[in-house]
Amino acid sequence: MGLRTIGIPDVLRRNAKLFAERPAFLCGDERVSHGDYLRRVERLAAGLAAAGIGAGDRVAILSRNNLEFVTLYGAVAWLNAILLPINWRLTAEEISYVLNDGSPKLVFADAEDQPRLAALRSSLPSTASFYGIGGEIEPFRSFGSLSTPAGAPPEVEIDPEAGYVIIHTAAVDGKPRGALLSQANLLAAAQQQVSYWGLNEQDVGLVGLPLFHIAGLGFAFAVTFGGGASVIQSRFDAETAARQVAAAKVTVFSEFAPMLAQLLDKASEVGADLGSLRAVTGLDSAETIARFEAACPKARFWAGYGQTETSGFVTFGPWRERPGAAGRPTPSAVVTVADERDEPLAAGQVGEILVRGPLVFRGYWGRQTDTEFTLREGWHHTGDLGRFDEDGYLWYAGRSPAKELIKPGGENVYPVEVEKVIREHEAIAEVVVLGVPDAQWGEAVKAVCVCRRGCAISAQDLIDFVGSRIARYKKPKHVVFVETLPKTAQGSIDRAAVKQQHGSA
Amino acid sequence: MGLRTIGIPDVLRRNAKLFAERPAFLCGDERVSHGDYLRRVERLAAGLAAAGIGAGDRVAILSRNNLEFVTLYGAVAWLNAILLPINWRLTAEEISYVLNDGSPKLVFADAEDQPRLAALRSSLPSTASFYGIGGEIEPFRSFGSLSTPAGAPPEVEIDPEAGYVIIHTAAVDGKPRGALLSQANLLAAAQQQVSYWGLNEQDVGLVGLPLFHIAGLGFAFAVTFGGGASVIQSRFDAETAARQVAAAKVTVFSEFAPMLAQLLDKASEVGADLGSLRAVTGLDSAETIARFEAACPKARFWAGYGQTETSGFVTFGPWRERPGAAGRPTPSAVVTVADERDEPLAAGQVGEILVRGPLVFRGYWGRQTDTEFTLREGWHHTGDLGRFDEDGYLWYAGRSPAKELIKPGGENVYPVEVEKVIREHEAIAEVVVLGVPDAQWGEAVKAVCVCRRGCAISAQDLIDFVGSRIARYKKPKHVVFVETLPKTAQGSIDRAAVKQQHGSA
Repeated sequence: MGLRTIGIPDVLRRNAKLFAERPAFLCGDERVSHGDYLRRVERLAAGLAAAGIGAGDRVAILSRNNLEFVTLYGAVAWLNAILLPINWRLTAEEISYVLNDGSPKLVFADAEDQPRLAALRSSLPSTASFYGIGGEIEPFRSFGSLSTPAGAPPEVEIDPEAGYVIIHTAAVDGKPRGALLSQANLLAAAQQQVSYWGLNEQDVGLVGLPLFHIAGLGFAFAVTFGGGASVIQSRFDAETAARQVAAAKVTVFSEFAPMLAQLLDKASEVGADLGSLRAVTGLDSAETIARFEAACPKARFWAGYGQTETSGFVTFGPWRERPGAAGRPTPSAVVTVADERDEPLAAGQVGEILVRGPLVFRGYWGRQTDTEFTLREGWHHTGDLGRFDEDGYLWYAGRSPAKELIKPGGENVYPVEVEKVIREHEAIAEVVVLGVPDAQWGEAVKAVCVCRRGCAISAQDLIDFVGSRIARYKKPKHVVFVETLPKTAQGSIDRAAVKQQHGSA
Repeated sequence: MGLRTIGIPDVLRRNAKLFAERPAFLCGDERVSHGDYLRRVERLAAGLAAAGIGAGDRVAILSRNNLEFVTLYGAVAWLNAILLPINWRLTAEEISYVLNDGSPKLVFADAEDQPRLAALRSSLPSTASFYGIGGEIEPFRSFGSLSTPAGAPPEVEIDPEAGYVIIHTAAVDGKPRGALLSQANLLAAAQQQVSYWGLNEQDVGLVGLPLFHIAGLGFAFAVTFGGGASVIQSRFDAETAARQVAAAKVTVFSEFAPMLAQLLDKASEVGADLGSLRAVTGLDSAETIARFEAACPKARFWAGYGQTETSGFVTFGPWRERPGAAGRPTPSAVVTVADERDEPLAAGQVGEILVRGPLVFRGYWGRQTDTEFTLREGWHHTGDLGRFDEDGYLWYAGRSPAKELIKPGGENVYPVEVEKVIREHEAIAEVVVLGVPDAQWGEAVKAVCVCRRGCAISAQDLIDFVGSRIARYKKPKHVVFVETLPKTAQGSIDRAAVKQQHGSA
């Protein structure tokens, strides 16, 4: 191991030593202690190594949250290999794209997604082996067969700066790009979260966000880094969550709208006590946040700004300090707002958010040019717009036009990708897709369409058309038809003008 | 600046932006805000650069704590230069050794120490320039002349892994060794302290420890890293400290015995309210710690283990969790107890304490062989003994015989150095120097001597003899004369037997 570095396996060994009998994960009826967790990770690492996985090799997983998932991310870290978690809301075509992009040696899938993958198999890398979680169909092998005692796992020299996880995020051209994060990235983000919240072995985190998302993975790992326990939900269910908060005395929670509002609703419905909660973070409306802090007066909602490429939050702070803002830069991040020439702008001026520091990702998998462009001049260019106020709070101001995206329930949707699908419909001549405020999901997808002369289609039919071709969370919630779209002097569609006219739901 | 690294200047810029008007340092009647502090650091960095200081150059300081000292450590960081703080309790000869070892281009000294340095000048590096703090005598130039507006400081690309501070610590052969720490070391230690104590801009630290010591420097920097204020005491004075805790609502304090006991005494004497304190750390007796927690029921005393070479604590925890132990390994450090072949020992077994992780220092200045030996096989070998209990708490078990040292009031005293001086006295034939428990200083120096045939000397005369030759804190507090010293089978002095017979005050 490095003299001056630590890796994720060091964290797991420390936990197993200091908190051996304390819970690491609670999942359904299962309780896994930190000691158990290390043993599971070691066994699986030995199995993965026997299956040919070494440093830098990719291991994909397409699964709801479960114990196998968290064990896999420990075992992959152990081998200095790379995890490729896949959003199970993607379509078969998108999943195939991500798998071919990451070219894993092993692919894990839960029972729900094995049929989809089996059907896709001819379009997947031919060298991959398939393993099932929670039972398996042909051609999947059993997860258990990998975890049978196979001797000690190899002692691997961890390079914490090497790639550890690839998380695909929507790209300008509509093809997902894999953001490569290192163990050092995850460790820096976890330590930062521990600094703000003082997370320790007494804490219990509710993991309702998917582990394929940086917000879910990073949150669960921060709790582990502090030595605490994570309540793993297969996928978020508000009623179960409310009962779990009360039963396991959950102290911290990370969420995207509408999870918190649903949790509050269900808690009062079933009479669950949320009083153990002390900190919640995520993306939510002022209304829900106010409701939460009223219901849990000792708890605080924390606002922040971050993206997959920054391993978590780079600005953070209690919402009530400056409602509507995204907190202030953390000590681990240098955050600036700059003009097109990367010159810092004064407070009050809107520009692109740039970031430096140990939270900056390694680059886009297999996209050297994109990486160099994004990380040019010693800064990570987030593609997001914002401004600082006089007190140093960041106010998020939307996506830069070049990289505009919509975030329904925390997912990333690029308008350009949805527009491309809509234009494939024979009835449509022109379209602009934009994000509009949404009480439930924070933001919703809206399509403003011009039909071809003599053609017509109902809003619902168009929505169904899109939903059949790309992940359902990308389909428009709102469709409006107009006679013409405003044009710029150069004759192209004036997106800003469309936004101004149609920017509400 | 590095895309994925941050340096100390980033921390100071962040503070100046987010906490511009809030206090950074309180020193006597002066209050310096974070905004002021950055401006002072920038001006001094510009002045140092104009005086020829660049990356890697050494800047020495021999001074009690003051604003110039803290400004200098910011400015030196700004230039990626190296600070060489000198213990003002050293003798002239020792100071000369340290200055020749570090060969600084600039030497700063406060009014109290300028005469000593001036007298020493012929034995110091001829290329050094001298600057006074708080007035100056010949040949010292004025500190202010360096800080006059000299344009903006240069933009320096900080390498956080490069050397930043050299702190001399006693060595086996009696010559101080300079432990070289990087900005990354200080940042990792600060972030760790922030994680444990949740330090933020609301915190106020009492800096009564000398800034030339890692415990003083590291503590002050941790408070700065969190955005808080440091109350700087020129040197610890219990009565002033008690009044300052009450007036500035000090929240955190780092100390070595007998500081805390004196603070408690004075506070009740002058009726000062210590209720703002929430966390104190250092080295102290069970009795004083119990007294402190009784007097300040909301506060906790935190125990830890660390040394200069580990940039601060590598084990840490609330004293009351396991009284007498030194806490448990922090998430930033991998700590093990090993036998002579570096094989980890089981709980309960005593061995050498080994450390890995971002807190491990860079090496000994100009001592390649020592560095390689100390950092062999991917571990820092602390030279200290300890054992882990079943729950992972570290129990300190003294210095390894090869590196035995005594810690009166947190200072490092090597028995071998004191023995060498005592043997220089004509009346002394043999001597063993050892540490004995001391109610006031934690540990005291004791000399067990055999006089030459026909010779005699009083204990006080021998103590004065030592005090005139090396730093006064190294002189024995206790001297006993014996007829003979026990010998091993091989004929050498049996130190263990001497300890057993004379190990109390």
